[in-house]
Order: sequence, then structure tokens, then C-alpha cells
Amino acid sequence: MITWSSLSNDEKKQALSRPAMANSQQLKLTVSEIIANVEAKGDSAVLDYTRKFDCPDLQSLVLSQSDIDELASKVSVEVANAIDIAFDNIKQFHEAQIPSDISLTTTPGVHCELRFTALDAVGLYIPGGSAPLPSTVLMLGVPALVAGCERKLLCTPPNKQQRIAPEIAFAARKCGIDNIFLCGGAQAVAAMALGTQSIPQVDKIFGPGNSFVTEAKQQVSQRADGAAIDMPAGPSEVLVLADKFADAEFVAADLLSQAEHGPDSQAILVSDSSELIDAAKAAVERQLATLSRAEIARPAMENARYILASSIDEAIEASNAYAAEHLIVQIEDARSYLPKIKYAGSIFLGPWSPESAGDYASGTNHVLPTYGYAKNYSSLGLLDFMRRYTIQELSADGMRNLGPAIMTLASAEGLDAHEQAVALRMNKLGMNDTSNDVDVNNGSNA
Amino acid sequence: MITWSSLSNDEKKQALSRPAMANSQQLKLTVSEIIANVEAKGDSAVLDYTRKFDCPDLQSLVLSQSDIDELASKVSVEVANAIDIAFDNIKQFHEAQIPSDISLTTTPGVHCELRFTALDAVGLYIPGGSAPLPSTVLMLGVPALVAGCERKLLCTPPNKQQRIAPEIAFAARKCGIDNIFLCGGAQAVAAMALGTQSIPQVDKIFGPGNSFVTEAKQQVSQRADGAAIDMPAGPSEVLVLADKFADAEFVAADLLSQAEHGPDSQAILVSDSSELIDAAKAAVERQLATLSRAEIARPAMENARYILASSIDEAIEASNAYAAEHLIVQIEDARSYLPKIKYAGSIFLGPWSPESAGDYASGTNHVLPTYGYAKNYSSLGLLDFMRRYTIQELSADGMRNLGPAIMTLASAEGLDAHEQAVALRMNKLGMNDTSNDVDVNNGSNA
Repeated sequence: MITWSSLSNDEKKQALSRPAMANSQQLKLTVSEIIANVEAKGDSAVLDYTRKFDCPDLQSLVLSQSDIDELASKVSVEVANAIDIAFDNIKQFHEAQIPSDISLTTTPGVHCELRFTALDAVGLYIPGGSAPLPSTVLMLGVPALVAGCERKLLCTPPNKQQRIAPEIAFAARKCGIDNIFLCGGAQAVAAMALGTQSIPQVDKIFGPGNSFVTEAKQQVSQRADGAAIDMPAGPSEVLVLADKFADAEFVAADLLSQAEHGPDSQAILVSDSSELIDAAKAAVERQLATLSRAEIARPAMENARYILASSIDEAIEASNAYAAEHLIVQIEDARSYLPKIKYAGSIFLGPWSPESAGDYASGTNHVLPTYGYAKNYSSLGLLDFMRRYTIQELSADGMRNLGPAIMTLASAEGLDAHEQAVALRMNKLGMNDTSNDVDVNNGSNA
Repeated sequence: MITWSSLSNDEKKQALSRPAMANSQQLKLTVSEIIANVEAKGDSAVLDYTRKFDCPDLQSLVLSQSDIDELASKVSVEVANAIDIAFDNIKQFHEAQIPSDISLTTTPGVHCELRFTALDAVGLYIPGGSAPLPSTVLMLGVPALVAGCERKLLCTPPNKQQRIAPEIAFAARKCGIDNIFLCGGAQAVAAMALGTQSIPQVDKIFGPGNSFVTEAKQQVSQRADGAAIDMPAGPSEVLVLADKFADAEFVAADLLSQAEHGPDSQAILVSDSSELIDAAKAAVERQLATLSRAEIARPAMENARYILASSIDEAIEASNAYAAEHLIVQIEDARSYLPKIKYAGSIFLGPWSPESAGDYASGTNHVLPTYGYAKNYSSLGLLDFMRRYTIQELSADGMRNLGPAIMTLASAEGLDAHEQAVALRMNKLGMNDTSNDVDVNNGSNA
């Protein structure tokens, strides 16, 4: 247990330090080689890598519609219903984010617009591994659907039988995913960013992954012919703020939910009650004994931090310094502390709001800024699947009104041709006296 | 003059190819060395570089408030008025972009929110060079002001007299910039991203610059302890769509406005009228002879492209394939073609809407995605100075209603601890029969 008020500034930083990320020179080189191979050889390189890492007998990168349908039909009614419920809530929350175009006359005759439009083609990456992640399909697929992206691809590594988990097929079909491709890792990211014979090039790539996927996303986002990406990634993390009224079993369960994601997951408890911290630690031990994923959660919990604050305000100070991906607030009257909370990817208020709720089904997106990025990046939302552009239209009157100011500024910046583009128009409008003290608001409309 | 319909797909790509960007290995190494130096030595490294490149006698990186005031007072009334007009229009357009928070009950008892908040600290980079760029100060400073960013820094290289252009000081003061630092280049970007003794670390860096600045922004955006950046950058560009009704002098002036930005600027004219193209080419030659920046514009115009399309639709096809930063539409009834135009950073409609209008004063932002990035990135706007985070709060009823679906999904993904975090709560609520077919909408509220 760390006592916050006894720490120096450096020790505070240390107490909130995050596990180092894999970004060795070797990883960078391996990934850039994979990308270069996919660029040069297209499908055959992606097939080779997928046979090597995931499925030795893979015949085709394309999962056919009939295979998708067959797989989807295998999902149990119970799971199908749960996916339906999550889908509906996520859809509601992301539909509420549909933005309005803006149309404005800034000066008489000067009309400006801001328009939102869906990205054309998006690539969704769903990791493979021991367990299927239909929830991540929903978190990426639903906003792509709501935004109206014309083309929605999904890449996920196949199992040894050239198939994917039925739950992923079911969720993907629900989101109107156009194509599922059987590949994963850096090769899948490279294929979506650059395009291959089978896999169309996309404008933006979304989704979590291992260090190869993360590095590949970074690398393709640096190429002018590559793709944009959702956000930088790091290991998942939770910070729980709790007071003496919190239920220690709930707190422990929430810490463990985070820990079971992986050995590099980080779980931090900050409380003004040493009794609560002691009770939560004991509950962690008890609950760990019952978990099937204890071998993953235990090493993560060994790096957990238990921080004792002298007050709730001090606890929030620590939380703000950490800027957690998930921030769970199990403090009495949790909502009243919102104005003091500065940074978090998503905030879970009160005893009945475990991280699991947001991970699966409340409606918020579970793709969140980790690793302190909550200070400068946003939670994934509908706007990440759209782009904004502007339009402007000046009438002759608009030119008369604004022309003199434009010419003055162009001249001040020494940009002749910019000035001339206006001067020619002003002349055409008979405004040969382009003196710069024309009053914009009372110009030709006076 | 290139005839579009005669081109193969590869030739079409070639006709719309962009100038190569400087991104040599040498540039990357030089920039990473500068960043490492600034990280290690802070202010003294930044001072050394600034003395070497910009101002041999520089005493301090900080431009004092009294110096700012003194400089600002030197701006002519005419320029001050023009800056005021531009400021007001830009402010109006960006105020119209203030987003609304979202608050929603997705399932009875399950409350979800999306909140927008200003980034805390932003760093605005304003290039130095031959001419001051007060317009860029406004394009970055006004949205930072409207968003309500707590801390707004500006870095710009000093002149030999340890000063900056009065227009920059005036515009910065108008935008409520908190501090102006006298440094430029990769060293300024490094200082804002990592912080030095004088220059506070910022969350996000905005603004245009030369290849060193661009590379430094990319590099710091890849570091977990660095800063986010506005968007990837490339040389500025314009595509003009014109028909036989267009004024060839206007078209030529708009192409030249682009060309005078730099020798690597790109100007493309696409028209269905060979007469218009011929007339525009002749007008370019005539106007070039009168421009003070002809030595910059001429090499750029040597790389200009003149493309003849067989119809307006074909011209728009070429425009969509190019995805221009600035798209000027000088076609009769220009607005009626908007539904066909897919990509552009900003669209200028009709004869009275030169690029200069948006560059300076109409109200739209002049920081736009170049180099084809209009397909996957947005024009700079208010939202780029804000971040989004979510909140969720389940009541006990919310947990009763949604708990079963969460448990089913957690179980399907093999995430025990996630399931347990809900099961414990359901038990506490006396829902020991956590059978998964509880109907969410008619659960405890039935």
C-alpha cells in the first residue's frame, strides 16, 4: 500500500508508471519487412504468413457469405439474444452522436458550411487468440454502420479449420460487414492499408491487437499511401476510486476484470480508506483462486498498485495524474465528483457500473485511449468513422464586402497572387477603388 | 494539355501524381537527433539551435508581454481592421461548431453520456520565413480560444533582432495566446511535445511548417510521452474545375495563388473546354509577369497540369480521384454539382469564391488535408481542439436489466472475471437466478 501524501513528485510519477511497451528495433524491422512483402506480393504474401502463423491449410483469404451464414447459425439463442441487446444499446448511443452539418453566413454574401460524411472504406481488425471477441466486432462495426461507411471489411485470423468463431460471424453479419478476410497480424493491417488482389484498400483501420498489429498500424499511418488509424494503443488499464462505503468484493472483481485481459494489464486502486484497501486485497486473493484465467490475472495483479490517499480530493488528484482508460468511481454520491475528474477514457459511476457493463452492453464504446492518451485523444465514437470538410460560396456582394480585408491580409503576408485573385474580381465588379477601408458590414449593402 | 478519356488507369494516376515529399533517412536522423538533444538539455538546446538557425544574439526564448504589446501596437490600422474582420468570421464559424454533450438511457436504468471538453494545453506552430503569417495564427488560435483550451502556446522563429512580425503578435494577442516562444523548426516541436524549463509541455501540436517541422511532428506523435498532432502534412495544392463559362483570368489567378506558396505547390485545372484551358494558360503567363513572387510560382506552374475532360462528370471523376486540399468549382450553377463531389478539404463555389477568401477571412479554416489525405482526414475544426469521453451509470435496476446479457457475453468470450464482476452484483441484488434469458426490456421493471 502506497501512501500518496508521503511521496515526492518523482515518486508519485513512479507510483503511476505504466508497464513498458514492446517497441524494440527488432519489432519495427520485422513489421516493416512484413509490410514490404505484402506490398510487393499481395495476396500470396498474406496467405504465406497466415499459413505460417494461424492455419497451415488455408486455401483462401476470403470467408464466403455461405460460410459466414453457416457459422452465424451456430450461435446459441442465448448468445444471439445477448449480442442483439448489446447491438441495440451501442446503436442507440452511436446514433445519438450523428452530427449536424453547419451552414452560416459570416458576412453578408459570404456563406460557409461544414459537412460531415462517412469515411468510404473502413477496415476493422479483430484479434484471434483463445477467445472470440464479438464485443469488439460490435464496437467497431456498429459505428461504421451508423456512420454509413460504404465499405466495411473485417480481418481476423482463422483457426486451424479455416474458420472463425461463430460469434464473430454473427456479430459481423449484424453490423452489415461487407467482407470477412481470414488473416491477422501485421500482414492483415498491411493488406487493408495498401490493398491486395482480394482485400480492398481502406481509408482507415480500427481495432486492437498485439504488438505486431499495433506497430503495423503505426507504420501504415505514417505512409502517404497508407491508411489513417483509430488511435495509438497501449496495454489496457483500470483505476478504481473507492471510499469506505465501497463494496470490497465489487472493487476486487473490477480490478480482476482488468487483470485478466493480459499480464501487462494494469490495475490501480486509490482510496482514502486503508480498511477498504486491505479488504479489497483480501478479496482479490479469494476471487483469484476461483478464476479460470488466474494464470493471466495473477502476474498482472502482482503489478497492481494500491494507493492510500488522505482525502477524496487527493485520490482524484492521483487519478487525474494517471488519466486512466477505465475509471471506476465507487465513492458515495459518485456523480457529484465528476466536475473534479479531468481525464479518463470512460468513467463508470457508482456500485452498479462495473467495467464489464461498458465493455459489452451499456452502449458506450469500449475502444478507449490507454497509456495516458486520455489526455490528448478521444474515446472511439461515431465521429471517428466520419470526416469533415468545408464549403464556401461568396456572392458578388460577398466579394464586395470581404474583398478589401482579404487583399489587405494577402498584402501583409506578401502573397501577391492571393491579392490579385481578389483584385481581378473586384475590378470586374467595378470596385476599382479597392481602398482597404471599406466597411465590411456597410459595403455594397449600404 | 492532357486528354483524360485517352488515358489508361495508370496514366490517370500519373496525371494526378503529387510531387514527392522530402522524407529521406537523413532528415529523419537529423530530426531525431534534435529531439534527443532538446529532451536531454531542454532550453539550452533550443537556444543553441535558434541562435544557429534564426537569431545569433538571442537572449531568451520568451517573448515578454511588454514586447508583445509593443509589437502589436505597430500594426497599421488597416491591417488591424482586416485581422479584426477575419477574426470575427473565423470565430463565428468555429463557434457554430461547438458540440452538444449527449445523455441517453439505452436500457431502463442504464445511463450513458458522451462529453466534449477542451484539450488542456495546445501548442501552435507558426512558420517564420520571408513573410509573416497572421492568418495562420487566427486559424489555430481562434478555435483554441473558442474551445476554451486552458493553455495556448505559440512558437515561431525570431528574426535577427530577437523579435517577430508585429502582425503575428497582434493576432496572437487577439486569440488570447498565453505565451509566445521565440523558436522554430524541429526544436520548437520537440520543446512543446516534451516540455523544457521555459516551454510547458502541450497535449497537441498544430500548424504548418517545413520538412523538419513536419518530420518532428510525426516523430513526437509516435512517442507515448509526446504529443498528438493536427494531421499529416504535405505540399499545398489546388484543383480548379472550370467550364466554358468560367473567367479565364480568375482561373489563372487561382492557380497562381496556389503556386506562389512554394515551388512544390501543385495546381491542376480540369475543364471540359479546351478553349478555357488555352485561355487560362495564356492568362497564367500574363499574370506571372506581374507577380513579385514569380520566381516561386513559376517552377510550381511548370509542374501544373491542364486536363481536358469530355464532360463535367468526367472532370469531377478526375477531381474525386485527386482529392484536393482546395477544390475551386467555377462551373455554371456550381452548387448543383456538390452531390457528385466526393473528396476535398475545402470547396470554393462559383466565380466569387477564390482560395484567398478561405485562406484569410471567410470563416472556414485554412488548415486542410493535403496530399490526398482529404479521403481519410478532416479539415481542421473546433473538434480538433477538444476531446470526447464517456460516462456510464447503471442503477440497481439497470444492473438487473442488463446483467444477464453482460454475463452471457463475458462467458462467450471466456472472460471469467468480467462475468464475476456482474455475478457478484446480481447476487447482492438477490438475483441469484442469473439465468440468461431475462428479457432486458421487461426485467425488473415488468
